[in-house]
Amino acid sequence: MYFFGAGRADGNAKLKTLLGGKGANLAEMTRIGLPVPPGFTITTEVCTGYYANKRRLPAGLKGEADRAVTRLQKLTGKRFGDAANPLLVSVRSGARESMPGMMDTILNLGLNDKTVEVLARRSGSPRFAWDSYRRFVQMYGDVVMGVQANGKDAHEPFEEVLEGLKREVGVERDSDLTPGNLQELIRRYKQLIQRHAGRAFPQDPVTQMWGAIEAVFNSWNNDRAIVYRRKYKIPHEWGTAVNVQTMVFGNLGNTSGTGVAFTRDPASGEKVFYGEYLINAQGEDVVAGIRTPRPLQELKKEMPKAHAELEQIRRTLEKHFRDMQDFEFTIEDNRVYMLQTRNGKRTGLAAVRIAVEMVGEKLIDRKTALMRVPADSLSSVLAPVFDRNDRKAAEAAGRLLCKGLPAGPGAASGKVVFNAEDAVALAHRGDPVLLVRVETTPEDLRGMIAAQGILTARGGVSSHAALVARQMGKVCVCGAQDLHVDYSARVVRVKGKTIREGEFLSIDGTVGEVFEGQVQTAPSEVVQVLVKKNLNSRKSRAYRQFASLMGWADQVRKLGVRTNADQPDQAQTAIAFGAEGIGLCRTEHMFFGGSRIDAVREMIVAETPEARAAALKKLLPFQREDFIGLFKAMRGRPVTIRTLDPPLHEFLPQESEQIRDLADKLRLPYEKLSARIHQLHEANPMLGHRGCRLGIVYPEITEMQARAIFEAAAQVQKSGVRVRPEIMIPLVAFEKELQLQSEVVHRTAEAVQKKTGQKIAYLIGTMIEVPRAALVAEGIAQTAQFFSFGTNDLTQTGLGMSRDDSGSFLPVYAEREIVKVNPFASIDQPGVGRLIELAIAGGRKRRRDLKLGICGEHGGDPDSIDFCHRAGLSYVSCSPYRVPIARLAAAQAVLRRENA
Amino acid sequence: MYFFGAGRADGNAKLKTLLGGKGANLAEMTRIGLPVPPGFTITTEVCTGYYANKRRLPAGLKGEADRAVTRLQKLTGKRFGDAANPLLVSVRSGARESMPGMMDTILNLGLNDKTVEVLARRSGSPRFAWDSYRRFVQMYGDVVMGVQANGKDAHEPFEEVLEGLKREVGVERDSDLTPGNLQELIRRYKQLIQRHAGRAFPQDPVTQMWGAIEAVFNSWNNDRAIVYRRKYKIPHEWGTAVNVQTMVFGNLGNTSGTGVAFTRDPASGEKVFYGEYLINAQGEDVVAGIRTPRPLQELKKEMPKAHAELEQIRRTLEKHFRDMQDFEFTIEDNRVYMLQTRNGKRTGLAAVRIAVEMVGEKLIDRKTALMRVPADSLSSVLAPVFDRNDRKAAEAAGRLLCKGLPAGPGAASGKVVFNAEDAVALAHRGDPVLLVRVETTPEDLRGMIAAQGILTARGGVSSHAALVARQMGKVCVCGAQDLHVDYSARVVRVKGKTIREGEFLSIDGTVGEVFEGQVQTAPSEVVQVLVKKNLNSRKSRAYRQFASLMGWADQVRKLGVRTNADQPDQAQTAIAFGAEGIGLCRTEHMFFGGSRIDAVREMIVAETPEARAAALKKLLPFQREDFIGLFKAMRGRPVTIRTLDPPLHEFLPQESEQIRDLADKLRLPYEKLSARIHQLHEANPMLGHRGCRLGIVYPEITEMQARAIFEAAAQVQKSGVRVRPEIMIPLVAFEKELQLQSEVVHRTAEAVQKKTGQKIAYLIGTMIEVPRAALVAEGIAQTAQFFSFGTNDLTQTGLGMSRDDSGSFLPVYAEREIVKVNPFASIDQPGVGRLIELAIAGGRKRRRDLKLGICGEHGGDPDSIDFCHRAGLSYVSCSPYRVPIARLAAAQAVLRRENA
Repeated sequence: MYFFGAGRADGNAKLKTLLGGKGANLAEMTRIGLPVPPGFTITTEVCTGYYANKRRLPAGLKGEADRAVTRLQKLTGKRFGDAANPLLVSVRSGARESMPGMMDTILNLGLNDKTVEVLARRSGSPRFAWDSYRRFVQMYGDVVMGVQANGKDAHEPFEEVLEGLKREVGVERDSDLTPGNLQELIRRYKQLIQRHAGRAFPQDPVTQMWGAIEAVFNSWNNDRAIVYRRKYKIPHEWGTAVNVQTMVFGNLGNTSGTGVAFTRDPASGEKVFYGEYLINAQGEDVVAGIRTPRPLQELKKEMPKAHAELEQIRRTLEKHFRDMQDFEFTIEDNRVYMLQTRNGKRTGLAAVRIAVEMVGEKLIDRKTALMRVPADSLSSVLAPVFDRNDRKAAEAAGRLLCKGLPAGPGAASGKVVFNAEDAVALAHRGDPVLLVRVETTPEDLRGMIAAQGILTARGGVSSHAALVARQMGKVCVCGAQDLHVDYSARVVRVKGKTIREGEFLSIDGTVGEVFEGQVQTAPSEVVQVLVKKNLNSRKSRAYRQFASLMGWADQVRKLGVRTNADQPDQAQTAIAFGAEGIGLCRTEHMFFGGSRIDAVREMIVAETPEARAAALKKLLPFQREDFIGLFKAMRGRPVTIRTLDPPLHEFLPQESEQIRDLADKLRLPYEKLSARIHQLHEANPMLGHRGCRLGIVYPEITEMQARAIFEAAAQVQKSGVRVRPEIMIPLVAFEKELQLQSEVVHRTAEAVQKKTGQKIAYLIGTMIEVPRAALVAEGIAQTAQFFSFGTNDLTQTGLGMSRDDSGSFLPVYAEREIVKVNPFASIDQPGVGRLIELAIAGGRKRRRDLKLGICGEHGGDPDSIDFCHRAGLSYVSCSPYRVPIARLAAAQAVLRRENA
Repeated sequence: MYFFGAGRADGNAKLKTLLGGKGANLAEMTRIGLPVPPGFTITTEVCTGYYANKRRLPAGLKGEADRAVTRLQKLTGKRFGDAANPLLVSVRSGARESMPGMMDTILNLGLNDKTVEVLARRSGSPRFAWDSYRRFVQMYGDVVMGVQANGKDAHEPFEEVLEGLKREVGVERDSDLTPGNLQELIRRYKQLIQRHAGRAFPQDPVTQMWGAIEAVFNSWNNDRAIVYRRKYKIPHEWGTAVNVQTMVFGNLGNTSGTGVAFTRDPASGEKVFYGEYLINAQGEDVVAGIRTPRPLQELKKEMPKAHAELEQIRRTLEKHFRDMQDFEFTIEDNRVYMLQTRNGKRTGLAAVRIAVEMVGEKLIDRKTALMRVPADSLSSVLAPVFDRNDRKAAEAAGRLLCKGLPAGPGAASGKVVFNAEDAVALAHRGDPVLLVRVETTPEDLRGMIAAQGILTARGGVSSHAALVARQMGKVCVCGAQDLHVDYSARVVRVKGKTIREGEFLSIDGTVGEVFEGQVQTAPSEVVQVLVKKNLNSRKSRAYRQFASLMGWADQVRKLGVRTNADQPDQAQTAIAFGAEGIGLCRTEHMFFGGSRIDAVREMIVAETPEARAAALKKLLPFQREDFIGLFKAMRGRPVTIRTLDPPLHEFLPQESEQIRDLADKLRLPYEKLSARIHQLHEANPMLGHRGCRLGIVYPEITEMQARAIFEAAAQVQKSGVRVRPEIMIPLVAFEKELQLQSEVVHRTAEAVQKKTGQKIAYLIGTMIEVPRAALVAEGIAQTAQFFSFGTNDLTQTGLGMSRDDSGSFLPVYAEREIVKVNPFASIDQPGVGRLIELAIAGGRKRRRDLKLGICGEHGGDPDSIDFCHRAGLSYVSCSPYRVPIARLAAAQAVLRRENA
């Protein structure tokens, strides 16, 4: 039981764990002299004890509370139930982290048949007094005494009584009820309570208080609160504190009011006093949205003294808390009271601006600034956005069609197409394109590149569409299940509407919304400076602040940050975002361009090593050119190149018409080609003939790829640019797989170096992406000069869970709290993380200087990056648009350890 | 360099590692007074040194060899190149384990232009002498001097010269060449050697000897030898010894001869002197098969003294080596010489008989007997066999069509059918059935039960077909790739032949052969006694000996042995074979019988929990009956029951006609059913919505199954039979999965116990079959009372390798020695084994008395059982027909540890 009032408080801001955010900050504000109505806080420990003890309050609590009430009465000069000067209090929840609106609050506690009269007298408004009492009885009856609707469709009983009375007296609005009406209403409410609860509404304020306290504790585990905590990853075991605080009234006439304010603009981060207020109103009225609050600036005119006082409070708060504050205040008869303050939530844009500007204002140091920006929120700094007003208009016009998973942040509008070819053609004509697919495959890649945005009806945040979208910084909404994509009719149907090919759709990949028609977008400033180079950096404050923050992050972080990129333009983007190398170049993405796919297919259907060699020979120059472009773009930075990984059938057509076309092209009988495709079909392609298993069975493929790499390296080196290829063999499970593949690579390197006279400083390593590799890492490290953790596949194999198929059960797993986070988005630390640790221990045992990286999708996830830092990795690699996030997260990982 | 001769030897039988099997036993035989021609052995260490030293012989060897030759000359009174009494020797390989015919041997070394004359004189047969010399020159030229055919299709050069001369002199057979012809031939051979090798054939016997020794070392790494070692898992690093031994001649006329003999019959194990010989012949002639050797009994008449001497040798050998010996002898002029002895290879049947009878003869103790029978070879004691003669006749008639993988041991003939329905129908008519499929699925189960044998064109030894076949003791050949199964034409084509439905095929699942038409079979005696109960145990010696061995094994072993069985008859068979409980009852196999599949399908397509509950209610009585049968059959033994595991789409039809039928049956629109089936399709079903993920999403399925188990248990217990169900939740990866499923089971158990008044002693546990489960085993053991390692899936996930898809690369992996054993047949100890060890450590940390078992296919594999014993498992579980193997292997695991 922590008391606060009159400039003194038992607690302080550091005791959030014990007092909850609200309680701790009420104490803190009291201490620093801000006008806080006195009260006391019952700790979260009492709440957890309450639950541990089968919802019974601990024995000593009563006595403590009595003493606190006595102190409160002494301080305020008011007494519970006093006929002259009654004490009224609010009873509010207050968890360690804010859970707005999730738990119960009871106001005006202390009102009864006697004290209501005093309130009527003292406020000069009997209507206000009786209405307050009426509301208290109703709320108390509902929340504490359980007088609630029975079943989903039943009427809320208090509402029923209220509506009945209004009908009887012939008024429409609550506010038209007279004090007399309200007295009658209270009488009927009491009868209702007696009937429903079997007990009378308690007249004794202390009894009222205990009921309210228990109700608040109970509301910690109401359905809404549980769902909210799950969503925001708040542990259920934290519990809530309860704040009992003297009431102040913002509704005592035009010299009273209430409001919420931010010490800076939470959307833009600008250092302006931002907020809204209502005259003659209680706090709920602001939230309820019945009356439209007015901007805080207007208060200056209306109540200059109160406004000046608030301005002073704003300064005090920022100076004291050294962070942007979001606070609630009430003005009672021209006196300002503070009811709450907390660190304000903000957009990513605002987070950067506030953090950097506060450093400038010497409010915080750089390390603190780095911790102030949630790493993930940086993506909003990079993503193009919908014009706010246009989006609102679209929703109002009923054009919000459905929602999917926010897979590629940003917003995009485009003409609907259903396949890659059409996307390319339409984009070629200069039209904005939105590629709509049931789901995407590598064959759609060109279309995805051409499109402004990607929309799929199936697949999760880690589906092919989402993966590629993030790598390319492409806007994407995936798994929008309400969409019915009809390829043959070239339409997509959704909720009775039909959108035809060529018509516009707009998607917001930050929130997952799909709109009919166009919604205007704009690229973010930072991207305009860094990537588009069409905005001068001096002209962009957003860019300069972003760059400052990134610079500070780079000074702190220990982890290297690389990127996953297959094409020179991707590499250039990533470098612009600060990538220090390529951590994963997927060579197979290079197989889909133009006529090279024909050579790939020829190679796959080849029946003899000779025929295969001939097809590979055709591919060699393409691959070499690809690597030349990449090496040039990377200018001496290391480039990790993965040899061919996906199962071969991914490169072949599956439908008979396409098979027939290909058969003609390759001059093969249709039956033969069809049989070969059938033969390549696999029950579980994820676990099939792919990765280094291809290179083992067809060493000539590895050889061709190695040759392309080394010949490209030699050529680029001749032009004076250093090249550092790191050749990575995928899906190794057995020591000898890597040995055999290394032999091919070394042999080829030797031959090319001899022929070209260029000495190439290359490394050879492997992906650790099946559990066995992690377990025998010591042996693998004999050959491998580096490990790169392929956490996508390591998660799939380690958990025995297919990314593509998990959609049918993973949502249920989240709901039942079997998984805390999506293991495909953030490293499953007890399982996959443990494998990584075992691999590191084994690998470093054999080779102390073993280079360690991660190139799965997790490389761009802040929690995973924190894990990677702790585990001792050398670098993380992620998609270009996540490079800034990774830089920041890597710095935060260091600081988190320093602070721990 | 180890010398042997005249009753003394440097080496002995224990030095096999150093001297090779042949060398060690030559020394040993010399020591125990058997007539061994003197000689010396160059150790395997020299061979490994030779390879380590880039194929150079060590420096000191020459001097040692010279001393050994001197000693040999002194002992025999013969000298290399001596004009009066020349020393002739053989130079033979001799590895630690026998590799018959794989390496090079050189005979008659020491012959040259001078000594050949002495041999001609002393043998009284110039033709023999010149022919010996001719053969020596040819062999030496080929093996030592590298005069060999160039390219695959080129003529063998010595053969060409020989054929040329034969044409010139007008003879057809080699034996028609006169001594003069042979001299001319030798002259031409020498020219050939000079031309090809650029050196003359060496006349100096010591030079000859060194050439021969190097050649033998080199032959350790010829292609044949490498392939052989791979097949029989002989390490390449062992190397071979070289034996240089004084020649004896079995071809000096009718008082000479040569032969091979076994101290007991290697096929039946009967204690008879068994072997064959040729008069006037060298050892090669017996092997070459040009002349037909005669049974050893006839020697008694022909050379009674030599025969008696051999009988004496046989007794000495068995008494000394205490194992059945396989030896080679030569009779030179009525004197018997021993050239080799080794432990004889034998069939499983023979192994049992010999081991048990040798215990009776007090030659060995019971523990030694247990180690004498390769556990796997017991399957031959249980499998029905082809009639030997009939099989031979079939092969001779060209009816051997192709080979596949030996997947279910035994032999079977039947009429070809292509689907389960036809199999059942045909079997119903009393016809023997052979089910031929491209591959099998659970839907084929009834057909597999009905069939005598199963033949598939696709799938490995762990494919569905093989798995089910072994569990049911069904004969199976799988992955016979030459078969082209044409379902629509109802034929199978193989090598130009077409076998129609209804025609006979015969398969031998012990060796993987497929025959056209019928080959006669017979059940094994042991099965007749134990399972068929149609043979009195007293009447079967084979049974009594088998039972003795099993009894001894049971006294020794520490591991329990359970069985994988879903049906009462399987359970009864397993009990007959000694199973102590059921380690895995797959409840889904119960879903395919009769009308229950309709209820299963109704459950799957249900759209509401209510509809699903209604379908499950229909299934409940079926499941309950199944469990009643099983519990009764097990009579108080523990029964581990796995809740539903396979993905739901496995229960639905995939072809549109069948979908239409089902739609009619379920009164659903075709499109709706089709859409549901499409929705259930998975990219990687192995990693998809299966195992406990079904029970998590549809807890009502788990509840129905638990109810069926407990209601059955209660009913059977009421009848006085104790029931010990162990409920096993599959595919657990997260602690909470098991918690949630346990709650359903416990709740159901409580309800049933309350209702029936029966207290049921059940356990709840989980399968450890994904790597994550092994890694978080400590947490899982909080809820799990037992772990059962599902090594099939643990191998698939741990290695990232699909059993069904590994056929395209695993053979290459074996060939390139990436894997030493098929990981789906024998536990991959460094990877999967390590996971098991981690799981055991974690699990036992939380729960010291945690019961640990294995229920993957590996539970019946001796190497895996050895691992399980070492790892500290409580029991192994395997298919009924592998129970005896597991019992023996478990005993051997104990003894191996004792001996180590």
